[in-house]
Amino acid sequence: MPKTAVMKKPAQKVSKSSLSKKLVYFFGGGKADGKESMKNLLGGKGANLAEMAGHPALKLPVPPGFTITTELCAYYWANKRAYPRQLKAEVEKNLRRIEELTGKKFGDPKNPLLVSVRSGARKSMPGMMETILNCGLTEATIPGLIELTKNPRFVYDSYRRLIMMYSDVVMEKGAGIEAEDNNGIRKQLERVMDAMKQKRGAKSDTDLKAGDLKELTVLFKAKIKEVLGKEFPDDHMAQLWGSIGAVFASWMGNKAVQYRKIEKIPAEWGTAVNVQSMVFGNMGDTSATGVAFTRDPGTGENYFYGEFLENAQGEDVVAGIRTPHPVNSQSRNEKSRHLKTMEEMMPACYRELAAIRAKLEKHYRDMLDVEFTVENGRLWMLQCRVGKRNGPAAVRMALDMYREKLATRDEVLHRVTGDQLNELLLPIIDPKAEATTRPLGKGLPAGPGGAVGMVVFNAADAVKWNKEGKKVILVREETNPEDVEGMRAAEAILTARGGMTSHAALVARGWGKCCVVGCDAIELEHGTKAFKIGSETVKEGDWVSLNGSKGTIYKGKMPLVEPGAETKKTLGEFLKLCNQVRALKVWTNADTPADSAQAREYGAEGIGLFRIEHMFYGKGSDAALFQLRKMIMSKTLEERKAALNDLFPYMKNDLKATFKVMEGMHVTVRLMDPPLHEFVPHQKEKLQELGQALGISYEELETRATALRESNPMMGHRGVRLGVTYPEITEMQTRAILEAAAELIKEGVKVYPDIMIPVVSLENEVTDQTAIIHRTYAEVYKKHGVKVNYMVGTMIEIPRACLLAGRLAETMEFFSFGTNDLTQMTFGYSRDDSGYFLKEYIDKKIIPVDPFQTIDQDGVGELIKITVERGRKTRKDLKIGICGEQGGEPVSVEFCHKAGLNYVSCSPFRVPIAILSAAQAQLRFPRKNK
Amino acid sequence: MPKTAVMKKPAQKVSKSSLSKKLVYFFGGGKADGKESMKNLLGGKGANLAEMAGHPALKLPVPPGFTITTELCAYYWANKRAYPRQLKAEVEKNLRRIEELTGKKFGDPKNPLLVSVRSGARKSMPGMMETILNCGLTEATIPGLIELTKNPRFVYDSYRRLIMMYSDVVMEKGAGIEAEDNNGIRKQLERVMDAMKQKRGAKSDTDLKAGDLKELTVLFKAKIKEVLGKEFPDDHMAQLWGSIGAVFASWMGNKAVQYRKIEKIPAEWGTAVNVQSMVFGNMGDTSATGVAFTRDPGTGENYFYGEFLENAQGEDVVAGIRTPHPVNSQSRNEKSRHLKTMEEMMPACYRELAAIRAKLEKHYRDMLDVEFTVENGRLWMLQCRVGKRNGPAAVRMALDMYREKLATRDEVLHRVTGDQLNELLLPIIDPKAEATTRPLGKGLPAGPGGAVGMVVFNAADAVKWNKEGKKVILVREETNPEDVEGMRAAEAILTARGGMTSHAALVARGWGKCCVVGCDAIELEHGTKAFKIGSETVKEGDWVSLNGSKGTIYKGKMPLVEPGAETKKTLGEFLKLCNQVRALKVWTNADTPADSAQAREYGAEGIGLFRIEHMFYGKGSDAALFQLRKMIMSKTLEERKAALNDLFPYMKNDLKATFKVMEGMHVTVRLMDPPLHEFVPHQKEKLQELGQALGISYEELETRATALRESNPMMGHRGVRLGVTYPEITEMQTRAILEAAAELIKEGVKVYPDIMIPVVSLENEVTDQTAIIHRTYAEVYKKHGVKVNYMVGTMIEIPRACLLAGRLAETMEFFSFGTNDLTQMTFGYSRDDSGYFLKEYIDKKIIPVDPFQTIDQDGVGELIKITVERGRKTRKDLKIGICGEQGGEPVSVEFCHKAGLNYVSCSPFRVPIAILSAAQAQLRFPRKNK
Repeated sequence: MPKTAVMKKPAQKVSKSSLSKKLVYFFGGGKADGKESMKNLLGGKGANLAEMAGHPALKLPVPPGFTITTELCAYYWANKRAYPRQLKAEVEKNLRRIEELTGKKFGDPKNPLLVSVRSGARKSMPGMMETILNCGLTEATIPGLIELTKNPRFVYDSYRRLIMMYSDVVMEKGAGIEAEDNNGIRKQLERVMDAMKQKRGAKSDTDLKAGDLKELTVLFKAKIKEVLGKEFPDDHMAQLWGSIGAVFASWMGNKAVQYRKIEKIPAEWGTAVNVQSMVFGNMGDTSATGVAFTRDPGTGENYFYGEFLENAQGEDVVAGIRTPHPVNSQSRNEKSRHLKTMEEMMPACYRELAAIRAKLEKHYRDMLDVEFTVENGRLWMLQCRVGKRNGPAAVRMALDMYREKLATRDEVLHRVTGDQLNELLLPIIDPKAEATTRPLGKGLPAGPGGAVGMVVFNAADAVKWNKEGKKVILVREETNPEDVEGMRAAEAILTARGGMTSHAALVARGWGKCCVVGCDAIELEHGTKAFKIGSETVKEGDWVSLNGSKGTIYKGKMPLVEPGAETKKTLGEFLKLCNQVRALKVWTNADTPADSAQAREYGAEGIGLFRIEHMFYGKGSDAALFQLRKMIMSKTLEERKAALNDLFPYMKNDLKATFKVMEGMHVTVRLMDPPLHEFVPHQKEKLQELGQALGISYEELETRATALRESNPMMGHRGVRLGVTYPEITEMQTRAILEAAAELIKEGVKVYPDIMIPVVSLENEVTDQTAIIHRTYAEVYKKHGVKVNYMVGTMIEIPRACLLAGRLAETMEFFSFGTNDLTQMTFGYSRDDSGYFLKEYIDKKIIPVDPFQTIDQDGVGELIKITVERGRKTRKDLKIGICGEQGGEPVSVEFCHKAGLNYVSCSPFRVPIAILSAAQAQLRFPRKNK
Repeated sequence: MPKTAVMKKPAQKVSKSSLSKKLVYFFGGGKADGKESMKNLLGGKGANLAEMAGHPALKLPVPPGFTITTELCAYYWANKRAYPRQLKAEVEKNLRRIEELTGKKFGDPKNPLLVSVRSGARKSMPGMMETILNCGLTEATIPGLIELTKNPRFVYDSYRRLIMMYSDVVMEKGAGIEAEDNNGIRKQLERVMDAMKQKRGAKSDTDLKAGDLKELTVLFKAKIKEVLGKEFPDDHMAQLWGSIGAVFASWMGNKAVQYRKIEKIPAEWGTAVNVQSMVFGNMGDTSATGVAFTRDPGTGENYFYGEFLENAQGEDVVAGIRTPHPVNSQSRNEKSRHLKTMEEMMPACYRELAAIRAKLEKHYRDMLDVEFTVENGRLWMLQCRVGKRNGPAAVRMALDMYREKLATRDEVLHRVTGDQLNELLLPIIDPKAEATTRPLGKGLPAGPGGAVGMVVFNAADAVKWNKEGKKVILVREETNPEDVEGMRAAEAILTARGGMTSHAALVARGWGKCCVVGCDAIELEHGTKAFKIGSETVKEGDWVSLNGSKGTIYKGKMPLVEPGAETKKTLGEFLKLCNQVRALKVWTNADTPADSAQAREYGAEGIGLFRIEHMFYGKGSDAALFQLRKMIMSKTLEERKAALNDLFPYMKNDLKATFKVMEGMHVTVRLMDPPLHEFVPHQKEKLQELGQALGISYEELETRATALRESNPMMGHRGVRLGVTYPEITEMQTRAILEAAAELIKEGVKVYPDIMIPVVSLENEVTDQTAIIHRTYAEVYKKHGVKVNYMVGTMIEIPRACLLAGRLAETMEFFSFGTNDLTQMTFGYSRDDSGYFLKEYIDKKIIPVDPFQTIDQDGVGELIKITVERGRKTRKDLKIGICGEQGGEPVSVEFCHKAGLNYVSCSPFRVPIAILSAAQAQLRFPRKNK
């Protein structure tokens, strides 16, 4: 027995009185009630059909039809699946108009009109909702259609398709019946058809003759009665209303609900229903059906690009049973290079289509994706919409269309998304291969691009295998600073725990390295060097592929596509356009000369965050790290000062290298931030070595290490609190920064170091530290005799600092929002621990988005606004930026622009995205102070 | 060689132009330039001398003198220890006035005037600054004084005292010379004197004859020349100016600087200098000196209370060489009961003194502390000030003076501090014993009162020893919930780590139990059941005594004083006075019937925080805790629901017990707050037992326990986040609360349960939980058929909740500030980890006070104000309270009153303090909405 599922209603209630007067919009015959700008009411498909059919500049051949508005969808769900009374009359009136234009009549035995019934939401939801074709075929109309087409096989094939679709979509799914797996009515009918094929010795559907198909429709109807307990309706109007209802029903189907959740489409939007007269591309050699793009969506090149099939229906193109032909020679690909083009086979139709292509691009000022059908030599346009494109194509088209004056600069800047820009920078898994492969699992997309490698389970193995020339993917429960070398060596990182701002995610994103985190489905089996995921077990050395932009994990080696020099040139040109527009500066978070150079190449205008302690992570940091650890483990001021002296040269030289790369630009150096215990070694040998260097026992050292431990290190003894309690640490860092600068200035290098104090919550913290900094500068000046143009500023990452911004600005020359920490404190979320419940919060819509990815404008955003207002009230020219992870996220960049910040600072690989987002923000919300 | 210390200047700069015109204020002979209200300028001593001498209602016999204002102190330090030119003339002019009144002349060989030079700050700093007596004795004036007094011994004794004081105070300390330990000039002179005593076979100083003393002054002067390289000045004016400078210098001496830090006295205030003609109580049997209080400062009883010594100087009374006599029979104590009273010995002087006592009390409307001297039968008043008193005395006096109409209700309410009120509730270490005992060490005063017990080092021992009838003090590194039973069993708790809001401090304060935390000096020696503190080692079973109000630790058994029934009655009467005044309600934080009853007795008007999870702590909680642990360790919904069902009856019965005690009042039950892993047992056996109950392996259980661990649990999966992710937990708690209420209502008990949602940061969190709560109520109503008057509200403890208060108030009927967490998030301070750096922050004046003790008004306070404003804008009658630890702290209570809160909620033992503070707040800042 099939179970009846409870379908959820959309939250919004809709009464009759809230409906518009007009419920149905006609199109066809050079006229249309609607237009493209009415997408919200008519859905994308309906609006574009109206535009193509009715706009004076277009008047394209569109099979006549009508659209029932999206308002009816909400009404339908709010009113127990009923329609307002007037709908019936409106639908019938519009049917009459189709009949007039086509000369056919719906349900007419002689010259029957058949219609398609399709969904069409405000935003495209491909394949998520249902379609009924050939609606209107009944025992009564079949003979007439055979008479007209002289093609009984075509007619019975159309009929059996209608029965299959209708019983599945309307009678089963549309009625809320949840069939058991592989036992839905469609599957059952397919089995009936298979039996028939076996009986007849038919290899494929097309081997079945008209008579076979006719017999099949009888068997189908019996099966439907048996399984669903109802008759297949033999009435054309019943079919129409059944189909309309099923399309509305499919809006709340599982597939659609899931898809909307991912794409963040509100349930309240609803779908429209498009009822359109059928045209047939499968009426013989003078018929055909196809899809095309006005430009190549894979490369962006400016030529008409499309495929078609002779004597076929739309679904055949999609199903891939036959290899489609190219519409022209430019559209040829590997598989189709030997096939004839439409240009060759149907020159007149092709010319008409090519002319339509030009008209459409000129009209829409963008690249379009169209569907067309040729019925007995006559071309019909079935759909048109702005075409999807990949990153490289999007950028190329934007540049081309701007040059062609097809669109303005401001228009084309809106047409590229940050994610698309990102595709230009990274190797990606070949999208074609990806489209046909089922992933092993899914985590969070923490680092962009694609990667392929052999699985290893610890950092040491990653380094070792990498030295042996192997490509590896490092798989960890979660990572910590001691894994960094292994993370560098790996192609990508995959973790079972952690969120978008976990250690792995932060490090990987900073490097632009592919990374997937928090893949819960992974079960690491300790000691065995293997993990389980679903029913699969992946062992050390097995190949896996990651798509870090989507968070997907694949078994085996997937093909990768690399960006070329041409791509980079295109990117550069595109960013120049952005730079003409934007008001917000874009800086970068970089800690090494290599990252800094990379960011400069991408257009970064300064360093907004140089984490001074990051010199202690990663390759070649051993010696410096050892000195740092000595300093940390010191108990007396003398011990600590000695260790600081030993540390000084490492730090100075490290800073010099980056200052040099960033010549002429500001470099914001953040003083030591993390709690000291983060640097305490975990391995016993390292601890022993340290003990020897300090001349203290292992036990004593362990005691000191224990004393450093904290129950909530994020809110513990870190940041400026270290600087206040150990002023000598601030002094040494300042000396390293200013001496590095002074030495370079003497060499003629222009250096602008900005010193940034982290984790500030009190006015006196900054006055205390600023005094040390200025005092140290006086000494450096005495020693080197050159002036250093430095500024002193603070991170704003504690709610109290936001509230007290006015007082902080009395001493501070710049502010930089550390939105990771600020988000933590404002929400009381530990970014390391919130992964579990945040995921559920997002699923349950308790919170709209992950605030560690996109700035929470209501809470954190208000604090940012308060800070800007109070800070600038005290100091009019206060420089304000953001250096949290959100600094490279488009929505957050727009927020920063609106909040009046001077710059955003983000990972080198996010710089282009930030530049684009800043330009888009300025276009949407122009501000004066560029 | 003595080192010359660098003395620090006060920060403030003082120039000549900022000085007042008048630098010196005269008093004496029934007149005075100053008065009591001029304390800031004249210091306390100077202002009161002026008041006594010059006020028309008093005109008491005060030896004439003058006061150099506190302004000169700041000037002195800001101007390289120089004075403005006009000072010399002013001082000399005022000296002439003294000479006129006394008939003596300063430096006159025949009838020499001697003066005392004393400090006197705005606020009393007893013993912290220096005094010079007998100033004006020189080779020239000595013969005349001998001639006048006929007492060469008296004169030479006065002279050697002057030399000793002057060389120490002026020539050594005043010159900034830091002598080595035990080698200061005073010590060296004492050794000279000892040698002389030995030579003469004298037992005490008084055995030395006039000739011996004369010889001694010669030896003293030689020693001074030898050690300090300077001559003792034989010029009366040089002595006077030297003395004045030394008093100003002593303001920046180490002792004074330390004292000011503790008492939070600003360095800028400075001290005044009082120069006053000497009167001598040591001129024979008709002379005497004494100190008295106008009422008993230990009990508050209304009689004149004082002590005196015949033929003695002031310093003899303080030094305790002879037992002082009582001034009257009421002043007799154990030691002095056999001694004659002043009333008996000097009836005329006593009558005069008693009359002065009455005059002074009437004039000052408060209890006073006076110093007096009788010189040759003539009474002189040397000092008067508002007298210090202990808690019981303060309360008694307040009530008495109000009844006597000596002071108004509003006046007396201001004269009792919260700490004094607290003394009425608790046994305390006998203050007399404490005054003479050196503590072993000092920690933070986390739980009030005094305690004496034997040291134990773990909770189990505490329980065991307690059962054996022993009084124990539990000493731990820090405590955790598993220690709670042991903490209950102990007289007091002492920890080496943790701050004022550490686990130990919170629990102890809640119980009103004596507790000292964060005593860094303690070194626990693991495995040995002993701790080191300084040079001492304290072993298991050793007796120690704690003063939890001061944070001091003593070796051995100190005597304790308990409050009696009389005290409680007095307290009740006093609180009634407070209740007449206050606008703010006072509720309590209580989790047990006993605590609730205690709080009600003290005047609590509701429960503002009933921590539902606290039923799992402490004695008798084993069975419930086991069920809770089962629930926590459940992995599936089914497992969890089963465990919740088992837990339900425990929770319901626990709630009923407290609801009953609080009949007729609101009880605010906070839903489960802490991260679940807090309840995971640490011991292997307990974990195994749990595994058996759940039917899973130990390894599996360990895995589950590990999965619950968090890196920053304070910001992890806790509070409402548990309720959202496990709705069944909220449902069970709600059911327990509402069924407990319903069952009691059926028995005729009036119950008002308020359900409070913790750790909220999002609007949707409260709507989600409120829906569960209302749904559950509908079910409870169905089952029991009685209406429960419940409210749903939220804690406000996350900064974001403050900003979004307007939206939260749409659903929430009340707010309660959790200022512990709010302070943590606003500052980014983990209360468990901030102890170390916060201490240093306070020492370095980076932050004025510990924000976990007193609400930070600038940061947290602004958030509170924002919340109140936005919350009430949405819901006008929104009930708002505070249930953080600061709810019982006077300054914070005043803030809450001003912010317009409806109530503060605090530990039962803080309730009286909160009531008093609320009354005081209303007097200072009257508001309408009582």
